[in-house]
Amino acid sequence: MIKVGIVGGTGYTGVELLRLLAVHPEVQLTAITSRKEDGLPVADMYPSLRGRVNIAFSAPDKADLTQCDVVFFATPHGVAMAQAPELLAKGVKVIDLAADFRIKDRAVFEKTYKIDHTAPELLEQAVYGLVELNREEIKQANLIANPGCYPTTMQIGYAPLLKAGVIDAGHLIADCKSGVSGAGRKAEIGILFSEASDNFKAYGVSGHRHTPETSAQLQRFTDQKVSLIFTPHLVPMIRGMHSTLYAKLTKDVSNEELQKLFEDAYKDEQFVDVMPFGSHPETRTTKGSNMLRLAVHRPDGGDTVVVLVVQDNLVKGASGQAVQCMNLMFGLQEDLGLNTIALLP
Amino acid sequence: MIKVGIVGGTGYTGVELLRLLAVHPEVQLTAITSRKEDGLPVADMYPSLRGRVNIAFSAPDKADLTQCDVVFFATPHGVAMAQAPELLAKGVKVIDLAADFRIKDRAVFEKTYKIDHTAPELLEQAVYGLVELNREEIKQANLIANPGCYPTTMQIGYAPLLKAGVIDAGHLIADCKSGVSGAGRKAEIGILFSEASDNFKAYGVSGHRHTPETSAQLQRFTDQKVSLIFTPHLVPMIRGMHSTLYAKLTKDVSNEELQKLFEDAYKDEQFVDVMPFGSHPETRTTKGSNMLRLAVHRPDGGDTVVVLVVQDNLVKGASGQAVQCMNLMFGLQEDLGLNTIALLP
Amino acid sequence: MIKVGIVGGTGYTGVELLRLLAVHPEVQLTAITSRKEDGLPVADMYPSLRGRVNIAFSAPDKADLTQCDVVFFATPHGVAMAQAPELLAKGVKVIDLAADFRIKDRAVFEKTYKIDHTAPELLEQAVYGLVELNREEIKQANLIANPGCYPTTMQIGYAPLLKAGVIDAGHLIADCKSGVSGAGRKAEIGILFSEASDNFKAYGVSGHRHTPETSAQLQRFTDQKVSLIFTPHLVPMIRGMHSTLYAKLTKDVSNEELQKLFEDAYKDEQFVDVMPFGSHPETRTTKGSNMLRLAVHRPDGGDTVVVLVVQDNLVKGASGQAVQCMNLMFGLQEDLGLNTIALLP
Amino acid sequence: MIKVGIVGGTGYTGVELLRLLAVHPEVQLTAITSRKEDGLPVADMYPSLRGRVNIAFSAPDKADLTQCDVVFFATPHGVAMAQAPELLAKGVKVIDLAADFRIKDRAVFEKTYKIDHTAPELLEQAVYGLVELNREEIKQANLIANPGCYPTTMQIGYAPLLKAGVIDAGHLIADCKSGVSGAGRKAEIGILFSEASDNFKAYGVSGHRHTPETSAQLQRFTDQKVSLIFTPHLVPMIRGMHSTLYAKLTKDVSNEELQKLFEDAYKDEQFVDVMPFGSHPETRTTKGSNMLRLAVHRPDGGDTVVVLVVQDNLVKGASGQAVQCMNLMFGLQEDLGLNTIALLP
Repeated sequence: MIKVGIVGGTGYTGVELLRLLAVHPEVQLTAITSRKEDGLPVADMYPSLRGRVNIAFSAPDKADLTQCDVVFFATPHGVAMAQAPELLAKGVKVIDLAADFRIKDRAVFEKTYKIDHTAPELLEQAVYGLVELNREEIKQANLIANPGCYPTTMQIGYAPLLKAGVIDAGHLIADCKSGVSGAGRKAEIGILFSEASDNFKAYGVSGHRHTPETSAQLQRFTDQKVSLIFTPHLVPMIRGMHSTLYAKLTKDVSNEELQKLFEDAYKDEQFVDVMPFGSHPETRTTKGSNMLRLAVHRPDGGDTVVVLVVQDNLVKGASGQAVQCMNLMFGLQEDLGLNTIALLP
Repeated sequence: MIKVGIVGGTGYTGVELLRLLAVHPEVQLTAITSRKEDGLPVADMYPSLRGRVNIAFSAPDKADLTQCDVVFFATPHGVAMAQAPELLAKGVKVIDLAADFRIKDRAVFEKTYKIDHTAPELLEQAVYGLVELNREEIKQANLIANPGCYPTTMQIGYAPLLKAGVIDAGHLIADCKSGVSGAGRKAEIGILFSEASDNFKAYGVSGHRHTPETSAQLQRFTDQKVSLIFTPHLVPMIRGMHSTLYAKLTKDVSNEELQKLFEDAYKDEQFVDVMPFGSHPETRTTKGSNMLRLAVHRPDGGDTVVVLVVQDNLVKGASGQAVQCMNLMFGLQEDLGLNTIALLP
Repeated sequence: MIKVGIVGGTGYTGVELLRLLAVHPEVQLTAITSRKEDGLPVADMYPSLRGRVNIAFSAPDKADLTQCDVVFFATPHGVAMAQAPELLAKGVKVIDLAADFRIKDRAVFEKTYKIDHTAPELLEQAVYGLVELNREEIKQANLIANPGCYPTTMQIGYAPLLKAGVIDAGHLIADCKSGVSGAGRKAEIGILFSEASDNFKAYGVSGHRHTPETSAQLQRFTDQKVSLIFTPHLVPMIRGMHSTLYAKLTKDVSNEELQKLFEDAYKDEQFVDVMPFGSHPETRTTKGSNMLRLAVHRPDGGDTVVVLVVQDNLVKGASGQAVQCMNLMFGLQEDLGLNTIALLP
Repeated sequence: MIKVGIVGGTGYTGVELLRLLAVHPEVQLTAITSRKEDGLPVADMYPSLRGRVNIAFSAPDKADLTQCDVVFFATPHGVAMAQAPELLAKGVKVIDLAADFRIKDRAVFEKTYKIDHTAPELLEQAVYGLVELNREEIKQANLIANPGCYPTTMQIGYAPLLKAGVIDAGHLIADCKSGVSGAGRKAEIGILFSEASDNFKAYGVSGHRHTPETSAQLQRFTDQKVSLIFTPHLVPMIRGMHSTLYAKLTKDVSNEELQKLFEDAYKDEQFVDVMPFGSHPETRTTKGSNMLRLAVHRPDGGDTVVVLVVQDNLVKGASGQAVQCMNLMFGLQEDLGLNTIALLP
């Protein structure tokens, strides 16, 4: 059994880790820390876990995380970089669900997140945890930078096109929509039910933190300079993410060839479902599951390709992807504990 | 492996059976019938099942259900009574999720459902599939009448009080609220998103089919004549049911004694969670799971007891309960395939 | 033109007052106070008011409310009682949307709201602002205690039955459901979209502040001692309230007589719509309007009468009712500025 | 008083016309036709209109629409073209909310809508009813082709940029999102609450009927060949539309100049609100009102301009726009009956 610690278990990615790990056959939940909720049984905060998770939150200083085999950080940015060095030094693997190790270029990180990086020496060793594009490195990793939710959809959607060199990398437009849980479990007016329900809006249109992360990763797949416009929107639903990816074709490829690029790229992937050409994937077909679905379109037969990508932002977009990484890091079957079928309707 | 057939797999209880059974370790999905969708791969209708359920719907006359060990009827009322006799005669067990065998009194059934009963000889042998109140009979059953969703909550909530003889059985008021999936997957104006969203209403207040079913079952637990007012309402959410049960206390019992009645009644039940006295169970703590949660209240310390009961209407209220019955009928562990934790948030 | 001031204009009842008063033909919005938002244009906080409300919030100490003809308090409990004495002394009428003057019995108030009453001398003079049950007094009033949202539905629904003496006043059960806006515009976890959406729950079941207010008002209509069980629930919708009111009939009345009690009681009321016997009023038929709709039922023809009452909790349940009072206090037509038709769908 | 007839009053644009026209000071509702609901009082179908609209639906052959001054067609495509010639011949003005007269090029219309045009002689005379871009012609019109909901947002958003010649008209990308009411009041599985709620999806990505309409209109503003990619999506909310419009800048313009283009274009418009540069308009700020709001962005200061446009799809996107046209056609004040403030929250 793998002894697992979770730092910051009170947020949505934290409780989602608990939901997944509580039924994972090779995991023993060992410690869940929360500064504010020290001593509170986890199931008192999340009654859905009553009878299933029987430990309590403990204050960070009371929990001996070095007893764990792996520690997940489901924390705001800045926490993992402070604690990871000691854990790694003691042989504990670390999976950070925040952004601390996602951007290799320290200057870009610090400009983007407006904090100093306190463990820059780990940036090189950190492995970006997008399994489908990085599997072999993840197997060897001790420190995982779990991808952002939006970046996961953009990379899975654009990678086959960039690798094949059939699109203009200098003019990518990603129009993305997320359920409200993506904003986290914070007491803020803007995400109250009476504010976010029955409403739709964009946010961060002039510039968003996920753009540099995504651009840097996409750049790996092409020699052309990547230029990405990324526009996030808030959808009145709890879970789910839908990315509508636009690119201009620079080569004369048929619809069949486009479709084949994707089918070939993901033919061995159990968590990427390439739907028939021209399909319209719905976010609800991934709700609660680690599945990402996509479909390719070519509006009016023109020179623009559109890729529609859906996932559950809390699973494949966050905690499920982290567990997928953990499975690989410990030599387990990749889908262990991740086989739940989406809740539909 | 148990060979399972599903008649009427296109509705919400049907797809919910598929979701549960596709990952059930002892089940082999053998046939799913649909008159209208003959030949259509199940996953084409429900993309959430892509890669997980690989069979197609078949027309009723093409499917040899007698090859199955058990057949679930996820159909409108009237279908199971037509087909059950032949299946039972050939040794196939039958679990009906509709009402055909729920009411023992043929006259009451026919008056309530306004159809003739074509298999009245089976009414006696049919076992009412509410496991927590009927476990031993279910283990021996060949024909299960799976309870209605509302009746499940009312029976679990009132039974301990009636058995203990502490309430006035002649004046029970059950104010119940259901998510919209309870209305089924039918093309009807009233359950369109633009009609049912951002709205709340009662329906069937003057009389509802679940009243006679519930009254007859509750009568088993008391000598006093049961009189039940049952008021269903429609909540703008997909899944979830919340019953607020009122009863007048006829004996001088303390809050602790009330609480103990429930804790004792369900102390060995893994799918009934008696929360601390005065709790407010939320429907979302059961979403996608087979768990039913309840809590006992006594407003302003008076002589009225209020029991709050929540469940997922499609799981414990329908398909999960049916699988729970199946497990017992085949001598399996009761919770096999039913251990999913609720999806929260 | 009536010069209107609003104290506490940033909450939901505040912005609803603004929406209604901005198009009221006899009103001039003169001052809107907010301690936190001093100087902020109202339309910056509520862009729906851009181009329609052109004043800014001002700090309480900067606004000279004594210039107003009437001041609305859309504040938490305790604010109006502090400021009303001075305003009234200077001839300014006061309408309090909070609870400060709703309960005549000071001891009950202080026990219920757990604060000292600092203006007990005004309790006698305050008029309870439920127009349909109190019109003549309201016309003469200088200080209005605007009713709570739940109490409005319970009084309108029970009053005709109590006045006619046909029900048992000692065993009233009111099962009520409210949209989330009723919880106010507060940064609290429990009313986040991701917590309150796709969910249903009861709250305050063991005792709620609206019970004493309602019981005291209902007592006016009967000599029998009123005993009320009131259970509030939270519905995943922004606006709307549905009360399901139960009472036991003590006299042999026909359905027609029951219906006539209500039709007679409200035949001259333009904001109370008595629907045909056995109807199921929907909250959405009142969304954004000052209309309250009700319908009478008698389940299975028994001795229990059920009254279904719906309203928009922010309009007839709060700000619309307050404007209705204002119209009467200033001798205007009762429906001035309140004629908007509900937004459906 | 203007005598108004409505053909097809049972759909969502029909009931929205009723909501607006019932309180319009210069309108007398004279006839509302419905083939299926002949004789049914309008308020029985839409209880929100109880006490406000007192006429009944009448079968088309029973209603003498020639008595009307103007007839609105809130019907499926194909109905207005059949009845408009006779009405126009008798001096009745016609406003068609469907597509029959939106596309001047008959061949394009017939290819797009897959029906023959039976009144091609009227195509020339029909005036496209987008007031802000076509006001003078509308004032003189007898036959109005009311714009589609999506096309309204795209035209208002792109027109100033195209007129100024600062963008590449050959590569416009419009990523648009609509509330579910846009799909109409039809008994279809796909728009059931349990299917469309808690979900997000694109539809018609490979080609949608609003593309030719919009392209043709946009072409009026530029000599460059317009090429438009239009992607509609379905948002789980009843009302509201959000269009995210992308264009590549071809000239070196500052943010201030971009903003000024829009402010100048719409400075006299009471139903177009140009928000400050970089704002994020929310659909709810237009709910129930005829207002359209927009804001201009320039992500990361690059060469892509993004225009965010919101409106209520049933008001400015349909029925409100139609009433705005009617006001102009009859020489009334443009905003008569259209001054309602959006319902927020």
